[in-house]
Amino acid sequence: MRILFANPNSSVSVTDRIAAVARAAASPGTEVVAVTAPYGVPYIATRAEAVIGARAALELLAEHGSGCDVAVIAAFADPGVGGARELFPFPVIGMAEAAMLTACMLGRRFSIVTFATAMEPWYRECVDDNGLSQRLASIRCVPGGFRDINTVQEEKGEELVAACHDAVTRDNADVVILGGAPLAGLAGAIAHRVPVPVVDGVAAAMRQAEVLAALRPRKATAGTFRTPDAKPISGVPEPLRKAFMRD
Amino acid sequence: MRILFANPNSSVSVTDRIAAVARAAASPGTEVVAVTAPYGVPYIATRAEAVIGARAALELLAEHGSGCDVAVIAAFADPGVGGARELFPFPVIGMAEAAMLTACMLGRRFSIVTFATAMEPWYRECVDDNGLSQRLASIRCVPGGFRDINTVQEEKGEELVAACHDAVTRDNADVVILGGAPLAGLAGAIAHRVPVPVVDGVAAAMRQAEVLAALRPRKATAGTFRTPDAKPISGVPEPLRKAFMRD
Amino acid sequence: MRILFANPNSSVSVTDRIAAVARAAASPGTEVVAVTAPYGVPYIATRAEAVIGARAALELLAEHGSGCDVAVIAAFADPGVGGARELFPFPVIGMAEAAMLTACMLGRRFSIVTFATAMEPWYRECVDDNGLSQRLASIRCVPGGFRDINTVQEEKGEELVAACHDAVTRDNADVVILGGAPLAGLAGAIAHRVPVPVVDGVAAAMRQAEVLAALRPRKATAGTFRTPDAKPISGVPEPLRKAFMRD
Amino acid sequence: MRILFANPNSSVSVTDRIAAVARAAASPGTEVVAVTAPYGVPYIATRAEAVIGARAALELLAEHGSGCDVAVIAAFADPGVGGARELFPFPVIGMAEAAMLTACMLGRRFSIVTFATAMEPWYRECVDDNGLSQRLASIRCVPGGFRDINTVQEEKGEELVAACHDAVTRDNADVVILGGAPLAGLAGAIAHRVPVPVVDGVAAAMRQAEVLAALRPRKATAGTFRTPDAKPISGVPEPLRKAFMRD
Amino acid sequence: MRILFANPNSSVSVTDRIAAVARAAASPGTEVVAVTAPYGVPYIATRAEAVIGARAALELLAEHGSGCDVAVIAAFADPGVGGARELFPFPVIGMAEAAMLTACMLGRRFSIVTFATAMEPWYRECVDDNGLSQRLASIRCVPGGFRDINTVQEEKGEELVAACHDAVTRDNADVVILGGAPLAGLAGAIAHRVPVPVVDGVAAAMRQAEVLAALRPRKATAGTFRTPDAKPISGVPEPLRKAFMRD
Amino acid sequence: MRILFANPNSSVSVTDRIAAVARAAASPGTEVVAVTAPYGVPYIATRAEAVIGARAALELLAEHGSGCDVAVIAAFADPGVGGARELFPFPVIGMAEAAMLTACMLGRRFSIVTFATAMEPWYRECVDDNGLSQRLASIRCVPGGFRDINTVQEEKGEELVAACHDAVTRDNADVVILGGAPLAGLAGAIAHRVPVPVVDGVAAAMRQAEVLAALRPRKATAGTFRTPDAKPISGVPEPLRKAFMRD
Repeated sequence: MRILFANPNSSVSVTDRIAAVARAAASPGTEVVAVTAPYGVPYIATRAEAVIGARAALELLAEHGSGCDVAVIAAFADPGVGGARELFPFPVIGMAEAAMLTACMLGRRFSIVTFATAMEPWYRECVDDNGLSQRLASIRCVPGGFRDINTVQEEKGEELVAACHDAVTRDNADVVILGGAPLAGLAGAIAHRVPVPVVDGVAAAMRQAEVLAALRPRKATAGTFRTPDAKPISGVPEPLRKAFMRD
Repeated sequence: MRILFANPNSSVSVTDRIAAVARAAASPGTEVVAVTAPYGVPYIATRAEAVIGARAALELLAEHGSGCDVAVIAAFADPGVGGARELFPFPVIGMAEAAMLTACMLGRRFSIVTFATAMEPWYRECVDDNGLSQRLASIRCVPGGFRDINTVQEEKGEELVAACHDAVTRDNADVVILGGAPLAGLAGAIAHRVPVPVVDGVAAAMRQAEVLAALRPRKATAGTFRTPDAKPISGVPEPLRKAFMRD
Repeated sequence: MRILFANPNSSVSVTDRIAAVARAAASPGTEVVAVTAPYGVPYIATRAEAVIGARAALELLAEHGSGCDVAVIAAFADPGVGGARELFPFPVIGMAEAAMLTACMLGRRFSIVTFATAMEPWYRECVDDNGLSQRLASIRCVPGGFRDINTVQEEKGEELVAACHDAVTRDNADVVILGGAPLAGLAGAIAHRVPVPVVDGVAAAMRQAEVLAALRPRKATAGTFRTPDAKPISGVPEPLRKAFMRD
Repeated sequence: MRILFANPNSSVSVTDRIAAVARAAASPGTEVVAVTAPYGVPYIATRAEAVIGARAALELLAEHGSGCDVAVIAAFADPGVGGARELFPFPVIGMAEAAMLTACMLGRRFSIVTFATAMEPWYRECVDDNGLSQRLASIRCVPGGFRDINTVQEEKGEELVAACHDAVTRDNADVVILGGAPLAGLAGAIAHRVPVPVVDGVAAAMRQAEVLAALRPRKATAGTFRTPDAKPISGVPEPLRKAFMRD
Repeated sequence: MRILFANPNSSVSVTDRIAAVARAAASPGTEVVAVTAPYGVPYIATRAEAVIGARAALELLAEHGSGCDVAVIAAFADPGVGGARELFPFPVIGMAEAAMLTACMLGRRFSIVTFATAMEPWYRECVDDNGLSQRLASIRCVPGGFRDINTVQEEKGEELVAACHDAVTRDNADVVILGGAPLAGLAGAIAHRVPVPVVDGVAAAMRQAEVLAALRPRKATAGTFRTPDAKPISGVPEPLRKAFMRD
Repeated sequence: MRILFANPNSSVSVTDRIAAVARAAASPGTEVVAVTAPYGVPYIATRAEAVIGARAALELLAEHGSGCDVAVIAAFADPGVGGARELFPFPVIGMAEAAMLTACMLGRRFSIVTFATAMEPWYRECVDDNGLSQRLASIRCVPGGFRDINTVQEEKGEELVAACHDAVTRDNADVVILGGAPLAGLAGAIAHRVPVPVVDGVAAAMRQAEVLAALRPRKATAGTFRTPDAKPISGVPEPLRKAFMRD
């Protein structure tokens, strides 16, 4: 199997972290291809930044998707996942979606814990878009700034563990998801310090991508994710233009 | 008052239609500025196309928003409206949002009637995003292709009237919204043939923009639509880069 | 345009305040007609009092509605608005409805802040009736009694500002509505002290009434707000009797 | 026990029917007092008519409630029930409420079947107000006019049975409620012709009133149904004025 | 009337308490038959224990239901009630269901107060299953262990009263339900100390069972509670086998 | 990895089919253990039968779970899954749950298609219990009886394909789940005849079980799925007694 992780953030270092965690979580023989947005912001935290990331995600999938079994949009609130699911012939999943669906098998209600308050509204809309707000206990964001997106999981580690505890004891979460690609890999490190299962978004996405690759679902020719009609489009990179044009 | 209509579609002819209907609906003294996406598709019909349009909307508002009292995203399911509402200092509304909220004052449940089946899933997600699905009676799309986006309202006129009737008699709509910028102006022409109020998206957006312009709400410095922190961003036009950077 | 503000409370002084704020918010050339319930309570605060106010609202619209373009039921939780919307040939809106729909264009979730705890249940039912509970952050009522309904906005001013802050910081409101006709005009005075947009119910209703007046929607002849069949009725004032009898 | 049935319709003949069915359904020793609105419409069918009936219900309870253990508002969508529950020291229930809660013990989803299409919107709002829309299968109204409200159950009998069948086979109802006081007593007559339990609103209300009378709940001094503060009120009959004034 | 109370717990002492409270709440002439699960746990507190209790409930109804007018499953979150309602020819109600529906006539939102935190998740699922989560204010459980299930209501009495107060003042409950068969009878003892109505599950179930017995609903032959087709089954007691086989 | 498939039906032939499909869907090196309920019904179709199956599921997991990485309750609406998730130290998933969560990655709304109308109510409650009713397009059951549970997928094959088409064209499903263990393996055979992805419950459960086995979540010591306190229990097989007693 070949799984594409498309990071709609522009930080190569975040992509590297995603790739490492994905590879560690993968089954033997699964190949991980990880690519980075050629423009945009280092890490998406708001709705406005997600607009930029959504388009970057489509461009990355158009350019790198060929030959992959499944593509993962590897930013937590899944920018562009619906559009990508329409447009491309291979299955596409979002990292938040994969984490939330996995969490649903581990508990009645999940909390999402992350490292910056800016993300809360965007994450909440993602939960709502997935029709999973009944399953959400809370979104807890560690307040205050941070020095470096590449080391934020160490820098904020204790606060993140504390937020996980609050999610369990105050919000009655049965399971906690660590949200945000920069936290990839942290779940394993703190699992023994949190009294409920902790889900890593990248690991969950990796394994859920394998589920879809194994089940080999057909591309819909009906329903809301059928391939759209060909549409002329201007001002986008050639691979994406071809995807819209069905070339 | 100065109201910006940003058409995230690439069709200048659709922008012209929007501008004409907006001006006809405006109060005396209101100035309408109408601009067109410099790239993308002639008319957005799917989630994937909306991803492209959302970024175009941000670019248009960054370039043309200065000096406007309110901006309207003038494609029916409001691509990028949440991001725009965060990013810019002036109020931003979507055409679908304005039409739906206006419709809520005219009836318990509204239907959206439009000219192409491709739009249904995208429209439905827009209704859900607005938390208005309890108020939705149905979305009715006239099936089959059409010859020209500029004359689709004439070409499909009888079928659209029939769909309005079905919305009332089969789906129990109290009010009908004609969705899609290419239908701008049609509501007036068919109102006498439909037994419930018919809402024109452009006219509703024009008048709702005036409401906000008159109320002069402050830009939030708290809450989920507060201006986000400045963020370095690459690969976007200079005005949009400045908006992200708070330059 | 001619807009009727029907105050279902019996306090002429509250009507005067409503009229003054409405006129200040109106477009040039808009005429405001403000009338007061001939019986009932000085200000409606409970479900039981709203029952009395609802009938008063119908009576006022029956007597004074002729020649008006739109009628506003000018008590915050909109007593009788559904019945009025059925019965009369002109559009009818409620003050709470107008404020809430306006707030929806300014934020994802709104709080309603008011001056007396008695109002909370009635307001909440109004939000539910409008199908907007997903958009509600909270209803915050300043506790304790007050001396005079005519000066309550000054008397409770600091507490109301504090409640607005709590709505934003504790309940995550993106926008605050000041509820209750006795608070008309306060929003402008405190807007600079609240970090999110503050919506004045009377000003919002004034402008939304103009929206409907401009759009000139037809009276429904189908759907749930079609004119009901003529019905003999006894024991109500002659203008209302005529409205029920379609005389 | 002494149970007050307050008919907010002005038809004494409907009251007589209600009283007869209530007495037949009552336990031995239960006394039924049935009173009729002194004004209003012969039978309430719309939101506007319900506004008139709601006030009549308060007046009837104020005048006749003393000495009763429980009061029933005996029109199907329960005009004024919330206000009455606040205002009076005895428990108050609505006929629709009693029927729906009873139906919930007999099936997962109930349908309401009635004799006139005008009633559908008002009934639906009643279901929503009770937070029971998840339990509603459908509201089915027999179309067309009728000759006499006193014999409508005979006149429309076959059509009502057919509507019950449609509710079961098309809408998947587990239980059917016959809505509207003029249908009181019909359930027993047609029960053997409908393949699911049929609930009579008056009989259900009679028995549920006995439940509350037996449990003797205290009047709330806290919560949203606590007795409101005394309030001066003008223009209402003396007993109702006293209720508002806590005289 | 003859009402069967089937206690799916294995404690005869709890059954005795249920029977005493039921008899005290019953109308003159109503006979109460109370039976105890022959196996299982002394009191059900978790989902896993409810699985055992659900089967015990079916066995008890199969063995003792004949000749009864209505059966009550007398453990608070109603194990097996849906299956029992399908399987048996007589009406079946659950104690939680009866208490919640009764509470709905006394207030807009109810809280459930009980004596052990273990019960919260199971109770919450019961509320959801009944489609009543909109009507739920909170579930409050007194923390800490207890010495004896038979005297827990005395042992935890003060804490339970305090929890009722918290439900009212913090969670805005209009009415409180005391959950759990071991608390049967406590409501009467503490009603004067709680500012809103307090509902006793056993008394409510007793009276609601009489409602159904009086209304004599037919057994459904359609809908989701129609008698299922006969099904061979092994490994269950003979009376239950016969119920499945329609012998 | 070692995955336990516990079939709460008593048909060994159905277990054999489950095991074969699970093995075909498994990753290399995954071991499948499949066990059959020692009592109960040949295939569960109703709520009452699910009560029996739920207890059988607990017994099977208690007896055979030791040494397994994950257990699957292999009947479509997941009898006993919540209780099992509390009680056992290993993760437990249901077949319906796994299928629905997988389907959520393939479309906005899924339909469940099955071979007998009796199952609809039980399946619908399962969807509701999972908080996924927003994602459900429909449940479609092929009407009429069948000859043999072991060949029902061949016998009803054409009707099942037709029902899948109806789910897509009439109910707007984006993806179809074939429900019911007796249909295991059919999805692959008919996928090319259905225009949207078709999900096989057993294959989805197999792969989702591997996801959980790979992620190795800890057993919760807090939240609603923490291990319950030890509880004495009588009348159950020794392995289950030990599970309740934490022996």
